[in-house]
Amino acid sequence: MLQVVETLAVATHGRGFFEITAALRRFAGGRGIATGLLTIWCRHTSCSLLVQENADPDVRADLESFFARLAPDGRGRYVHDVEGPDDMPAHIRAALTQTQLSVPIVEGELVLGTWQGVYLWEHRTTPHQREVVLHLIGE
Amino acid sequence: MLQVVETLAVATHGRGFFEITAALRRFAGGRGIATGLLTIWCRHTSCSLLVQENADPDVRADLESFFARLAPDGRGRYVHDVEGPDDMPAHIRAALTQTQLSVPIVEGELVLGTWQGVYLWEHRTTPHQREVVLHLIGE
Amino acid sequence: MLQVVETLAVATHGRGFFEITAALRRFAGGRGIATGLLTIWCRHTSCSLLVQENADPDVRADLESFFARLAPDGRGRYVHDVEGPDDMPAHIRAALTQTQLSVPIVEGELVLGTWQGVYLWEHRTTPHQREVVLHLIGE
Repeated sequence: MLQVVETLAVATHGRGFFEITAALRRFAGGRGIATGLLTIWCRHTSCSLLVQENADPDVRADLESFFARLAPDGRGRYVHDVEGPDDMPAHIRAALTQTQLSVPIVEGELVLGTWQGVYLWEHRTTPHQREVVLHLIGE
Repeated sequence: MLQVVETLAVATHGRGFFEITAALRRFAGGRGIATGLLTIWCRHTSCSLLVQENADPDVRADLESFFARLAPDGRGRYVHDVEGPDDMPAHIRAALTQTQLSVPIVEGELVLGTWQGVYLWEHRTTPHQREVVLHLIGE
Repeated sequence: MLQVVETLAVATHGRGFFEITAALRRFAGGRGIATGLLTIWCRHTSCSLLVQENADPDVRADLESFFARLAPDGRGRYVHDVEGPDDMPAHIRAALTQTQLSVPIVEGELVLGTWQGVYLWEHRTTPHQREVVLHLIGE
């Protein structure tokens, strides 16, 4: 049984979805691991992980609109607004989505469904350097 | 250390909760694994996984009502409605709940609490064939 | 490859955030495991797990206000109110957050980001005895 760990750097350019599926496949492949478990850990509390359809981009646009209505940006709405009107909404969006995902590996491949992509969802409106830790166990 | 993988097929008959706890127990048991970790991966973006009380069915009814108010079905509300008025709400419900769960195994049993059941939550209003990948590591 | 399992008892004194980061570090450290995966399982459906900023307490206050507006307490709002007006809102809050987290261990340390803390979030208004199962695999 082997373990491999790596940190993936994701440069975001403000609020939006940054697909990391290809990077996950590159990390998990070519290590001679046929069966295993890939864990993805987001090291932040104002961006998060999401599995969503990677076919029609309208899905992501509608998700963005939904969360913008659910937890609107704005000074005066929240006590914590030290970093701006998008600060607290970012924490709320992160609380409602995922900080961690674990994807099984079968025959050397992530078992994602046909339409599934893995995204880092940046919730801040300005660009950020994000870190995602990848941990693989298997053989 | 052993690993076992299997795909669980779940035939849903439209929106609702389909309990998979017994199927998870059958998969994890009888393999001589006393201590381990069972990972459950849902291969879809319009249904999801949820751990909830499996005693009083009113809990599931209230959850359904809550999510129906939070992300109402309806044409005109969302850009993405290719598959009908329940298409985008299904993606939103999936984003707000789980695509993956990992449950520790102790003394050959899932460590679920007394009232916990694991559900596949179908968010589409029509019946679907769903796939859930089960990955077990332990010894 | 080793596995270690332990149950962490958390005595809550009503609705609020109870940080368990230090307990997780104590559990994962001092076992000679340099690389691994720590899984945390909450054995309840009316409290949950959350990774959030552990610097400014205003973040937790705003999260509490947000969820109180999203799923208000109150008799008459929900069918399931057997245990009081905070019963069903507790299940909804648990559905929207996490029952399980898996954190990679690198060089003997949890890979939490600088501002990340792990919390048991009690959603019931009265004190409860909660159990969280910790499972560690690694070497």
